[in-house]
Amino acid sequence: MGQETIYFGRFISTPKPEELLIRTGAVLVNKKNGRGVIERADWTVNGPNDAISKFGVEAPVVTTKENGFFFPGFIDTHIHASQYPNVGIFGKSTLLDWLTTYTFPLESSLGNTNSPMYKDATEPPNPLARAKAVYNRIISRTLANGTTTASYYATIHLDATNLLADLAFDKGQRAYIGRVCMDRPETCPDYYRDESSEETLTNTKASIEYCRSLDPSGELLAHIITPRFAPSCLSETLSKLGSLAKEEDIRVQTHISENLNEVQLVKELFPDQATYTDVYDHHGLLTPRTILAHAVHLSQEEMRLIKERKTKVSHCPASNSALGSGFCPVRVMLDEGVEVGLGTDVSGGYSPSILDAVRNACIVSRHVGFINGGDSRYNLGVAEGLWLATVGGAKVVGMEGRLGGFEEGMLWDVQEIIMGDVSSSGDGEETGVDIFGWEQWDDRVAKWVWNGDDRNVQRVWVGGRLVHERRS
Amino acid sequence: MGQETIYFGRFISTPKPEELLIRTGAVLVNKKNGRGVIERADWTVNGPNDAISKFGVEAPVVTTKENGFFFPGFIDTHIHASQYPNVGIFGKSTLLDWLTTYTFPLESSLGNTNSPMYKDATEPPNPLARAKAVYNRIISRTLANGTTTASYYATIHLDATNLLADLAFDKGQRAYIGRVCMDRPETCPDYYRDESSEETLTNTKASIEYCRSLDPSGELLAHIITPRFAPSCLSETLSKLGSLAKEEDIRVQTHISENLNEVQLVKELFPDQATYTDVYDHHGLLTPRTILAHAVHLSQEEMRLIKERKTKVSHCPASNSALGSGFCPVRVMLDEGVEVGLGTDVSGGYSPSILDAVRNACIVSRHVGFINGGDSRYNLGVAEGLWLATVGGAKVVGMEGRLGGFEEGMLWDVQEIIMGDVSSSGDGEETGVDIFGWEQWDDRVAKWVWNGDDRNVQRVWVGGRLVHERRS
Repeated sequence: MGQETIYFGRFISTPKPEELLIRTGAVLVNKKNGRGVIERADWTVNGPNDAISKFGVEAPVVTTKENGFFFPGFIDTHIHASQYPNVGIFGKSTLLDWLTTYTFPLESSLGNTNSPMYKDATEPPNPLARAKAVYNRIISRTLANGTTTASYYATIHLDATNLLADLAFDKGQRAYIGRVCMDRPETCPDYYRDESSEETLTNTKASIEYCRSLDPSGELLAHIITPRFAPSCLSETLSKLGSLAKEEDIRVQTHISENLNEVQLVKELFPDQATYTDVYDHHGLLTPRTILAHAVHLSQEEMRLIKERKTKVSHCPASNSALGSGFCPVRVMLDEGVEVGLGTDVSGGYSPSILDAVRNACIVSRHVGFINGGDSRYNLGVAEGLWLATVGGAKVVGMEGRLGGFEEGMLWDVQEIIMGDVSSSGDGEETGVDIFGWEQWDDRVAKWVWNGDDRNVQRVWVGGRLVHERRS
Repeated sequence: MGQETIYFGRFISTPKPEELLIRTGAVLVNKKNGRGVIERADWTVNGPNDAISKFGVEAPVVTTKENGFFFPGFIDTHIHASQYPNVGIFGKSTLLDWLTTYTFPLESSLGNTNSPMYKDATEPPNPLARAKAVYNRIISRTLANGTTTASYYATIHLDATNLLADLAFDKGQRAYIGRVCMDRPETCPDYYRDESSEETLTNTKASIEYCRSLDPSGELLAHIITPRFAPSCLSETLSKLGSLAKEEDIRVQTHISENLNEVQLVKELFPDQATYTDVYDHHGLLTPRTILAHAVHLSQEEMRLIKERKTKVSHCPASNSALGSGFCPVRVMLDEGVEVGLGTDVSGGYSPSILDAVRNACIVSRHVGFINGGDSRYNLGVAEGLWLATVGGAKVVGMEGRLGGFEEGMLWDVQEIIMGDVSSSGDGEETGVDIFGWEQWDDRVAKWVWNGDDRNVQRVWVGGRLVHERRS
């Protein structure tokens, strides 16, 4: 007993891309086996006592505030945990010089005492202590922003990557942990790469085992095979990682077609493959469990191959804009039947918030429309942005039907959103979302999407466990 | 006595577009005549007592925190105070349908009991009470976000517009108050327009007088003549407003070339003028004290005319993106010598924060570069964005050399910024800006720009008066 909790109040979700479903009622969550699943949902319940009576269960009732609602937790399908300290630091760089100027120095500092970041250090470097601070902080910040599931890139370092797994598991975030694979000498700096294809495979396998030792079920925590991107890996490494993914039936994440210079580099490094997508397909990495980040400059043919392979795409609009990579045509991909979710892509993306990614996805979609003769068909609305952040993300991480909604059988990975009330004299709380009182609920949701931040996230649960509560 | 204050600590500003000037030292602010001007600045001062000794003045010393700095207050060169409740509410609309669907109903509700917004009201409408709540709130929110000067659109209603003036003056924000002029029957709704050109002029003059009665100097508060945009005014009205602006030597604000359908509409309504810019010029509204919002689709010729007339431009990137209006080529305008500042354009823009406008200006500039063959010359960096928000804005509102920096003789319109410290174990405060401690100061500023919000604005002064202090 004591494993059941009732949640009562307003529930908002996006079962379909254009549908903002707003319901009041209650759900009964059962944490037996530690999994926190919605056992029953009842949309006729009109109060806490009614819930207890209708469910026939004497369980504690968690109620949303008048100006609040439950919303499915966000799914960040692409985030570099190791790059968090660099959010906002990118100057006027684009992808390839951004990597060498900002990214490799920072990532290496989480494992290498010879990292360029320690060049002028006055104290002896302690990479693992730095990793701990960075990983602790990014997990806390993403949870505070309502991210219940994250697909993380770590670094090449096994010990620091295992530490990320420890911390995510301890804090209770649903997480896929990627130890970064990069071993191609022409493209990786000497101070930051695997020494050989063997080292790449050995450390990847060790990380897989470590994640399994923490969570044998793999439901809350699992390794995700992570070739950084095609140019950074030897061809034999890509093949071995493809085989490993198949043998172990394990997720894969990588980047694709983010930047035109990168696409050109791939052409030069892999002359035998016709396209960037073919490179991954050739090496057995275009699987139904593969997440491809960016996909800005894909041809129609590449999209079709991705769809055929049931491979997933992580759309990272803030990053694509910040690094001047281009406009990802999300509407075209959705129309093609490609499954798309959202990623913050910290720190190419400057924000750890998926709500910010929703905003940027909506904005970029209007730009896509604008460069296509002002065609508003390309526009993503608020409901579609939220759908990408929840249901879309669930498909991308292979959790379709288990995450992203309030139906019976789904996991209780949920955020409680509260907004600010403005009084009749114009006073109000200091959140970014001001509700005057006359707004319809769909407009309130729009106001939250466009001006919300972590102050609007009151509580966050993963698998029924309370993993964040906002300090009042 | 008691009119002097010393400010000691770190001062950051952008004297030139690409220059982030980071200094420590002290300034002495004297509030004689109630104006709060920097009397002396000394960049060799190394502590509060040193400041007192060097200035030879026994004045109270205000000191920035270790992880904080003074920054010039932001200047919002285009914001519709009346539309604040609609931030984020725009769906997939573009300019012209956005006006009729969302904007006119809300604006009218601040003065008309027959506003469509009151259609289903259960209580008797009280437009002025609504105006008070809305205006109170938007002034508080912009101050909390570091906006020390704002050029406001109100509505057509004289009493509500005067109320906006009262509230801004009372709260101490530097404000230009625009009573909206719109009297063209074909383009304005029956329920929301001036009845005649005469009414437009009479009410405009009354608003000018009211603002003067509050602040005869016009330095802190002044009326700004506000023809909504060319299509909404009768030609005779535009001419009379142009004459009035000249006679009274008063500021003007309006919109220009935001959306392609709007540009087409102007062509149809004003067939005798070759361009949108010519329409304003023809009516005497293209003055050195005129602020043109948007300027997205100007021809090179129009830019040249604007430059010749020394007319100013307010760039509103969030709005242009949200309403799918297009990409404003700020770099091209700056290269042409056009003076540009930033506007939030609430509620076409979804955020009342100029820091958000800085971000969006940087992002949109990368899009402009991307559609021009990936030319990074178009990119605006962090310093340039901040320059637009301060020095650029000062030029746009005719306060060049008096606002936007820390030089002797400038007004103390300043925000104190604080950032979050992350501890060695990864704990930290709940602001969006996490400083790990190893970042250089220019990188810290970039982190603030990309993830900052009102939580980072500790205190705000206008003309030496403390007008906002963040609740701790």
